Amino acid sequence: MMRTRPLKVALLGCGVVGSEVTRIITTQSADLAARIGAPIELAGIAVRRPNRVREGVPAELLTTDATALVKRGDLDVVVEVIGGIEPVRTLITTAFEHGASVVSANKALLAADGASLHAQAAEHGVDLYYEAAVAGAIPLIRPLRESLAGDKVNRVLGIVNGTTNFILDKMDTTGAGYSEALDEATALGYAEADPTADVEGFDAAAKAAILAGIAFHTRVTIDDVHREGLTEVTAADIASAKKMGCTVKLLAICERARDGRSVTARVHPAMIPLSHPLASVRGAYNAVFVEAEAAGRLMFYGPGAGGAPTASAVLGDLVAACRNKLAATTGAGESAYTQLPVSPMGDVVTRYHISLDVADKPGVLAQVATVFAEHDVSIDTVRQQGRSQGLGGDTNDGAADAPGGAGRLREGGEASLVVVTHRAPDAALSATVASLRTLDTVRGVASIMRVEGE
Amino acid sequence: MMRTRPLKVALLGCGVVGSEVTRIITTQSADLAARIGAPIELAGIAVRRPNRVREGVPAELLTTDATALVKRGDLDVVVEVIGGIEPVRTLITTAFEHGASVVSANKALLAADGASLHAQAAEHGVDLYYEAAVAGAIPLIRPLRESLAGDKVNRVLGIVNGTTNFILDKMDTTGAGYSEALDEATALGYAEADPTADVEGFDAAAKAAILAGIAFHTRVTIDDVHREGLTEVTAADIASAKKMGCTVKLLAICERARDGRSVTARVHPAMIPLSHPLASVRGAYNAVFVEAEAAGRLMFYGPGAGGAPTASAVLGDLVAACRNKLAATTGAGESAYTQLPVSPMGDVVTRYHISLDVADKPGVLAQVATVFAEHDVSIDTVRQQGRSQGLGGDTNDGAADAPGGAGRLREGGEASLVVVTHRAPDAALSATVASLRTLDTVRGVASIMRVEGE
Repeated sequence: MMRTRPLKVALLGCGVVGSEVTRIITTQSADLAARIGAPIELAGIAVRRPNRVREGVPAELLTTDATALVKRGDLDVVVEVIGGIEPVRTLITTAFEHGASVVSANKALLAADGASLHAQAAEHGVDLYYEAAVAGAIPLIRPLRESLAGDKVNRVLGIVNGTTNFILDKMDTTGAGYSEALDEATALGYAEADPTADVEGFDAAAKAAILAGIAFHTRVTIDDVHREGLTEVTAADIASAKKMGCTVKLLAICERARDGRSVTARVHPAMIPLSHPLASVRGAYNAVFVEAEAAGRLMFYGPGAGGAPTASAVLGDLVAACRNKLAATTGAGESAYTQLPVSPMGDVVTRYHISLDVADKPGVLAQVATVFAEHDVSIDTVRQQGRSQGLGGDTNDGAADAPGGAGRLREGGEASLVVVTHRAPDAALSATVASLRTLDTVRGVASIMRVEGE
Repeated sequence: MMRTRPLKVALLGCGVVGSEVTRIITTQSADLAARIGAPIELAGIAVRRPNRVREGVPAELLTTDATALVKRGDLDVVVEVIGGIEPVRTLITTAFEHGASVVSANKALLAADGASLHAQAAEHGVDLYYEAAVAGAIPLIRPLRESLAGDKVNRVLGIVNGTTNFILDKMDTTGAGYSEALDEATALGYAEADPTADVEGFDAAAKAAILAGIAFHTRVTIDDVHREGLTEVTAADIASAKKMGCTVKLLAICERARDGRSVTARVHPAMIPLSHPLASVRGAYNAVFVEAEAAGRLMFYGPGAGGAPTASAVLGDLVAACRNKLAATTGAGESAYTQLPVSPMGDVVTRYHISLDVADKPGVLAQVATVFAEHDVSIDTVRQQGRSQGLGGDTNDGAADAPGGAGRLREGGEASLVVVTHRAPDAALSATVASLRTLDTVRGVASIMRVEGE
């Protein structure tokens, strides 16, 4: 049964993930051979610093010439765990041209240029797999591409960045501010020295682009994804969320429009109810909800990063690519036949939680409510809270329906109004906020946050 | 690009799942064709009662002659949603012999005879897929077989039967007894008129066998699975669990032994801590934890039954089988190369929660503790509680460590002892309970339940 010709695999990059991939390939070789139907032979490992100590990595396999490695012509699969756009894009293209399938963990490249990479793989009759690019070890790409291939996915909603989830979880559980929580994440190794990609939402946006494209069988790039990071989330926002029975998470949300003619993809902080399963996703874990017409609501949960979990996803793809090479076939390629356009953020229908600093005098609530009505935004609840002395007693924390905006605040000083809207287009919500800012009685907009998961 | 020859698909069975499969194939035909690369043609639907009204099912496709249908010779894929062992086994075998791949939702057949079906499929160069056989719409089989193909799974722990989870959830939230909760499940359609397969654990045991075989790359049949249903779970058990900060779930647990040389598979009610994600799985939902060496802990959650969710899983397999037919290839077949034996329940290492009715007199705790020590079972906690008047005050609900069994109950009447053990082989735990029953001072063993998920 077992073919004797080994499958030749080259590795591009040997950092945390690459070392773990090497370790598994070398220590689990008998299992991998049995599962694939032929043994794997590590043909070479391209690295920048060949003299760095890498425990368990055979030194004789190391090379600094990645281009020569992918040009060998005898490779079955190239595993890319370098990251970034160039020189990786060129290396992957070269690997395809020389007949190798590619397994990549590169969310940035796939989110920027997935379509052309898929086209090149198809042209050369090889596979392009990238389960590790989204949510580490959690099987998501394969379930979306294959298990749900006969279903209609309407929504993907998830926590796909462990660093930001760690920071928000810290802020939620300890009351810490953003900077303090970021410092702790950095000290513990959850955040990189330059945390921009994580905290500004670029990493999550890349994953959202990949997930949206696969879920809706269309093409979505990172440029199509509305992106807001969490750097402006304050301890006060987290406290406001708690008052509403919510917590704050940085969510990636991909949705099919109700008329089915377009899709949206976005990443931003949002309040979600504590009863929502995503609310209890702690620390650096990831979890993704998938809502499909027949399947209903599915959730996938697990470690979203780290050397070993990411290596697990890479190895799963490597086994699949090797099996296909042995069978002289390829797996399902890109499916982008729906060609659904990506709508801008303004078309997204969502809810807002808005905190306003207002003058504490008669008619303010009526004025504010009128602005909402003018933009066709329906108010769910209003909570008004005095700031000056003599206020804040019986009105404190009291949520009140605001039918027609006839409420009246006590006179004198300043107060705050917390408004939660019903669902409305994001453009209408933004316009409402812009109008509110022009009111004399509105001293400032303290915070705006979307409410999701209800 | 699109091939014009349609793929011919026959359906065996047209009940709740079959009708939904038919509906999706007929209403989503353009999407399915785009995803497969060729259209699907429904060639025939075998039913027992052709005159029954089935909305949306083309009457001209119905036939009562399932054998003739699978013998047509021009079928690409046969979808089997009849269930049970015969005549289904013969029909599937005949389909293979006539060159058709098979998609089945039949857990009983796969758990009884999966190995020979896999061998027949391989012999005839066709696929056998059965994602729908375990946990409805939740992708589990494909992630285990493919996404985790490069990892080492050590444990699968899950709620795989919605009926029993509904019943236990009811008992937990309302304090209802088993019969009352079962009646409600029946009235709401969550339990069948004859609930035996669910409440005695046969359904979950079949799924455990399938999961264990795939997770550990070996062969496990339902006969290898230790099985206890939930008919003996009482309201008192649920109350005891609550006192421990636990809830009771019917769990399917598949484990690799620590020495890696054998596996176990079992289904039984167990207490799990409320902090465990499985504790919050409500109603008829399913959820499965997978623990793998590199990936860590993954969880898969979703609707475990129902026409539409099961149809979603069937359709995913159908698309895969059709793609393979078009590419003249097959997917990965059975992987049972480890040939790991299945150990008996006695070898499972677990914890017990035991409630004893004891004489309320001096030395009882010492006697009881001695029995545990004789069987090398270490006690974690003991809670003693008086039943007769004059007891139950300060000792009530007080958990106390029992170092050496020097405790002493107050004199007179009867009392109860609740013992929670550390981890020990199930055989030692059973032997301990048997010895306890022989003690004069032990009037009865009120309940025994395993504690998992810690």
